[in-house]
Amino acid sequence: MSGNTLGNLFAVTNFGESHGPAIGCVIDGCPPGLALSEADIQPELERRRPGTSKYVTQRQESDSVQILSGVYEGYTTGTPICLLIPNTDQRSKDYSDIAQSFRPGHADYTYWKKYGRRDPRGGGRSSARLTAPTVAAGAVARKWLSENHGVQLRACVTQVGEIALAFEDWKHARENPFCAPVADTSALEDYMQALRKAGDSCGARLRVQASGVPAGWGQPIYGRLDADIARAFMGLNAVKGVEIGDGFACAALRGSQAGDSPQPDGQGGVRFASNHAGGVLGGISSGQDIEVSVAIKPTSSILIEQPSMNTAGDVVQVATRGRHDPCVGLRAAPILEALLALVLMEHALQQRAQCGV
Amino acid sequence: MSGNTLGNLFAVTNFGESHGPAIGCVIDGCPPGLALSEADIQPELERRRPGTSKYVTQRQESDSVQILSGVYEGYTTGTPICLLIPNTDQRSKDYSDIAQSFRPGHADYTYWKKYGRRDPRGGGRSSARLTAPTVAAGAVARKWLSENHGVQLRACVTQVGEIALAFEDWKHARENPFCAPVADTSALEDYMQALRKAGDSCGARLRVQASGVPAGWGQPIYGRLDADIARAFMGLNAVKGVEIGDGFACAALRGSQAGDSPQPDGQGGVRFASNHAGGVLGGISSGQDIEVSVAIKPTSSILIEQPSMNTAGDVVQVATRGRHDPCVGLRAAPILEALLALVLMEHALQQRAQCGV
Amino acid sequence: MSGNTLGNLFAVTNFGESHGPAIGCVIDGCPPGLALSEADIQPELERRRPGTSKYVTQRQESDSVQILSGVYEGYTTGTPICLLIPNTDQRSKDYSDIAQSFRPGHADYTYWKKYGRRDPRGGGRSSARLTAPTVAAGAVARKWLSENHGVQLRACVTQVGEIALAFEDWKHARENPFCAPVADTSALEDYMQALRKAGDSCGARLRVQASGVPAGWGQPIYGRLDADIARAFMGLNAVKGVEIGDGFACAALRGSQAGDSPQPDGQGGVRFASNHAGGVLGGISSGQDIEVSVAIKPTSSILIEQPSMNTAGDVVQVATRGRHDPCVGLRAAPILEALLALVLMEHALQQRAQCGV
Amino acid sequence: MSGNTLGNLFAVTNFGESHGPAIGCVIDGCPPGLALSEADIQPELERRRPGTSKYVTQRQESDSVQILSGVYEGYTTGTPICLLIPNTDQRSKDYSDIAQSFRPGHADYTYWKKYGRRDPRGGGRSSARLTAPTVAAGAVARKWLSENHGVQLRACVTQVGEIALAFEDWKHARENPFCAPVADTSALEDYMQALRKAGDSCGARLRVQASGVPAGWGQPIYGRLDADIARAFMGLNAVKGVEIGDGFACAALRGSQAGDSPQPDGQGGVRFASNHAGGVLGGISSGQDIEVSVAIKPTSSILIEQPSMNTAGDVVQVATRGRHDPCVGLRAAPILEALLALVLMEHALQQRAQCGV
Repeated sequence: MSGNTLGNLFAVTNFGESHGPAIGCVIDGCPPGLALSEADIQPELERRRPGTSKYVTQRQESDSVQILSGVYEGYTTGTPICLLIPNTDQRSKDYSDIAQSFRPGHADYTYWKKYGRRDPRGGGRSSARLTAPTVAAGAVARKWLSENHGVQLRACVTQVGEIALAFEDWKHARENPFCAPVADTSALEDYMQALRKAGDSCGARLRVQASGVPAGWGQPIYGRLDADIARAFMGLNAVKGVEIGDGFACAALRGSQAGDSPQPDGQGGVRFASNHAGGVLGGISSGQDIEVSVAIKPTSSILIEQPSMNTAGDVVQVATRGRHDPCVGLRAAPILEALLALVLMEHALQQRAQCGV
Repeated sequence: MSGNTLGNLFAVTNFGESHGPAIGCVIDGCPPGLALSEADIQPELERRRPGTSKYVTQRQESDSVQILSGVYEGYTTGTPICLLIPNTDQRSKDYSDIAQSFRPGHADYTYWKKYGRRDPRGGGRSSARLTAPTVAAGAVARKWLSENHGVQLRACVTQVGEIALAFEDWKHARENPFCAPVADTSALEDYMQALRKAGDSCGARLRVQASGVPAGWGQPIYGRLDADIARAFMGLNAVKGVEIGDGFACAALRGSQAGDSPQPDGQGGVRFASNHAGGVLGGISSGQDIEVSVAIKPTSSILIEQPSMNTAGDVVQVATRGRHDPCVGLRAAPILEALLALVLMEHALQQRAQCGV
Repeated sequence: MSGNTLGNLFAVTNFGESHGPAIGCVIDGCPPGLALSEADIQPELERRRPGTSKYVTQRQESDSVQILSGVYEGYTTGTPICLLIPNTDQRSKDYSDIAQSFRPGHADYTYWKKYGRRDPRGGGRSSARLTAPTVAAGAVARKWLSENHGVQLRACVTQVGEIALAFEDWKHARENPFCAPVADTSALEDYMQALRKAGDSCGARLRVQASGVPAGWGQPIYGRLDADIARAFMGLNAVKGVEIGDGFACAALRGSQAGDSPQPDGQGGVRFASNHAGGVLGGISSGQDIEVSVAIKPTSSILIEQPSMNTAGDVVQVATRGRHDPCVGLRAAPILEALLALVLMEHALQQRAQCGV
Repeated sequence: MSGNTLGNLFAVTNFGESHGPAIGCVIDGCPPGLALSEADIQPELERRRPGTSKYVTQRQESDSVQILSGVYEGYTTGTPICLLIPNTDQRSKDYSDIAQSFRPGHADYTYWKKYGRRDPRGGGRSSARLTAPTVAAGAVARKWLSENHGVQLRACVTQVGEIALAFEDWKHARENPFCAPVADTSALEDYMQALRKAGDSCGARLRVQASGVPAGWGQPIYGRLDADIARAFMGLNAVKGVEIGDGFACAALRGSQAGDSPQPDGQGGVRFASNHAGGVLGGISSGQDIEVSVAIKPTSSILIEQPSMNTAGDVVQVATRGRHDPCVGLRAAPILEALLALVLMEHALQQRAQCGV
């Protein structure tokens, strides 16, 4: 119910504001006996960290995570794990001139309407900075999933603005600053340079994959695995669309094309002839790769002036001089992997609860 | 947590199987004092009911709903409302020959892997028949939303297989058997006839809209309104994609194009210059129309034989002779409206709980 | 959150009113593969059923339970189990003259204040009749607990009004109409006869025990096993006190007296020198018997006239002519066992989810 | 579901261990616009703080709370409030010799059985130190309840070991180190001195009261106000019994004695002739004072040697040399008030959600 908690059995409660003293989360329900230290979490935060290339925001945050509880002598104890990430590079004055104005396309307006007040410094609670605790919690989940089920997660950018990328190889996505699964990123470099010069931003599309998920995770009829993935992904800042498997392309398919025929694999198991369904049938994992795509809208904080209004109801022109990503999609891969890990972790425990496996 | 409950404050618990004695739901948390009788619910069930045109399944179900509790002298009392819908036209023998086989693209396989057993009659729990209780519960929510906030909901089909429909007018969607927002449906008629003759099925795309939603509904950061909409919609049988506002198209947009500039409306309120965001900013409603699109895959139960396997691990050919929709998308409009009503109802109460409005 | 649901992993949602068409519940989360039919549930309902002796209410209800879903070919499928119990012997006219008056000590007043309206027939939603679905759901839980863990549950009456009973043997509790663990119940017979003649009612105390519960069930720090037991028991109509183990007597003990020393049992296990704690330490089961006591207040519906007021704010005299139990405590044993079974079931699944055992 | 979260709409998630770097909690769902600073919370922590008299543990903790999030310019923003309390006076070596042994009556054994490992330093997660975040969260709830509904909370000790105290006046409970509602505490002083000299501990009984609670809070049938109070109180370390109103005494009462007759108060409202029910009828507040009693067992960590066993299964003698309270009940008053505030806060928001008041 709590809007800032994701999951029930592996429940992650997120707190903090962009320019407050610290951000973090509490994980409740983690199985005991998992070897865990900050060194297991920090690398994932590094992947998400700002300031690592000229194509992302220049805010410098070390994003050093501290484990405050739930781990004793190197192992999880089964009690709540509090992960704390101090904020160190706030420049709140950047925002003082827009504190009373609404950036078009931004949550400024809706927070103000909902709560009657808001913390405007760096976007306050609506800042993408709050994805850092999600990534930290996700690192715990993916370690457990990997060790207990061999689940592996990865994500890449498949479109940047108007540029659609033809998938080449997953390895490239870890090697270039665009998380692009292509060897040659020169076109992206030029595109992003031009965008930055124009003071504008652009959208993106990403692909996320989980392999090694056993068949049987997910609960009918409202608590489906794909439904929970869609919730987690659509809940990420700037995401406006989620697809499982063929997604919107399946609207144009026939039933005789879209079915993934299961066949005996000759070793007592099953292999499927295709994966149109993206690894989920009837809301339950089939044992195939989970395949998800998301659409991310352009950053709403841009240098270009836009007409808007302020809290007093006056017409104003708004331009955002704070440090922002020209394409938040470029930093979304580790966050989406983390979110998928959290959803899978929840369903792994749900399955163990009901079916004992 | 419970996979068969949608919502927390307006919590709908769904039960039943396609060929069991009855299906239904329990609504907990409905505000007291709402005028309610079966006559408020039945019309929505009629819209979803099978057997109403030659383009949908020919199963004949009256879908007569009974209110078993929670209403006294014509008004809700605030206690649980149990809605019961007896099943009357089961033909379970249709399924006896496929009870041990897995239809490609169907939940047959995953239910069996998850639970170790399943009720195969008419798809059992995974049947789209279980959307009837959702529609019934949604009718209660939409009545409250309409009376208390003036919220109105509607949906239409915007693509059937390869045929994309250019939106003309909402009124048409209530007048033709395709829920299509167009005056001339002759192309759809031909398409569906050919499809039926071929024993095949096709996918679809739908648009869903809620107007009158006040600004301020939705909770950051995981419990966003759009996240909960995505969960509810992706949780509907056969849905493989969900978009809010511009959806996947926003990947190609610039920030200078995608912002919806708020402007004073001259009466102390606000109007927006556009609605790229689909009525949700930062997970909170903005007061604009909520705009959602979904992709629905082709029905997996088709007459055409497909290669598959059975529970013994043998290769088999599967064709489904039961009565099925060649395009489930044609019947999805009232279900999607109901799901959106349930999500909005939940957030209306959440907003009232925390912010008192 | 939903006030009418008990449990999260084994979630029981209760619905119905005393004089509506039916009462019942939906169980979500039941493990698949449990052999189950109405014959497993009916005997527990018989134990709770009214009209079985002259010491209880004379309302005649067969309390015949129907399984509407979740069971196929004699086994649970893992999907929601709806249990329906039709009401058959309503005499709503008995209540017409007190529909606008508040019985002292009854929920009449508070329901009216909370909801602005209420169903007054037979107490509506606040009737103890709504414990029948709880008993039915509990029968499912206790079957699973017995088969999977050897857990056994029993309860007896240890005080009736001023008469405290010295515990003799559990077997007597199943043999006399007072659920009294004593061979000679003549004093109770006389007491109850006099009470009935006086048109009055009395309170009671009961003891409830679960044996065979393994060590490790229960979650710190708010979700403790004893906390959840206290919630379930205090949530039962008329219960005003709950004790675990020594309960209130431990206020007068010393630490050197109250500790239950664990000792090796010579077979690799442990036995405790005593059971002051009632089987729960730090909110987690210790493997000892769970021991609980409850206090039940006198029935508020009595024939004796009492001063009160009505909904118009007038002073009135109230006497209740409906059929009521002079001592609801006499019928509480199977209900308390059912509630304890539901709490244990929930924690069995929680433990399996987090710790995998 | 999460065992370390109390509440759903005002959800408090507790984290930390006795000897870890910090303890704390996250409050999700707090209404926006509440004036709040550390100065509103610290006084309640002072009341609970150890080391304040010779009758309690001598551990010195400043218990300085820091608000890490959710407050901006002195007001709550509606987003999660993280409250952090650093640990400063750990002496973990005190525990090294009992790390592998089980204190009789302590959670040592059950944590070990549940999780397979535990943090033994200062009791780790099972330490009463973890009540500090509860008190801090309770301070926020009581401020809101006081400002919005005039609710006032208080608690006192009514029994210490064998000494029962005749209630004189609430004011005394704030003036002496025993929280005793009596002017002369010399008998208690002597008793506690003798107890400390003997290296033993004792139990206690407390009374808790909330006044100003409006009628209508609480949800039938499982989510009753009294049920939730019982859960919260029984969930506090060492509590073994909870009573509402007359509690166990009502077992001996007649219905003609136990009813609290409502009467018009001459001003359009109602007053009751008595308060046997303790302010709750049918699980819903009646507008009368909420009256609760709890029994607290003796501290299990005592200097006197007791027979026990260790993790290797050997018989050992255990004595605890760490700093402990000889009667934890003496420090329980502010904790119980905080717990009651949290439960009432939750139900205030639940009532606002469903009934809009």
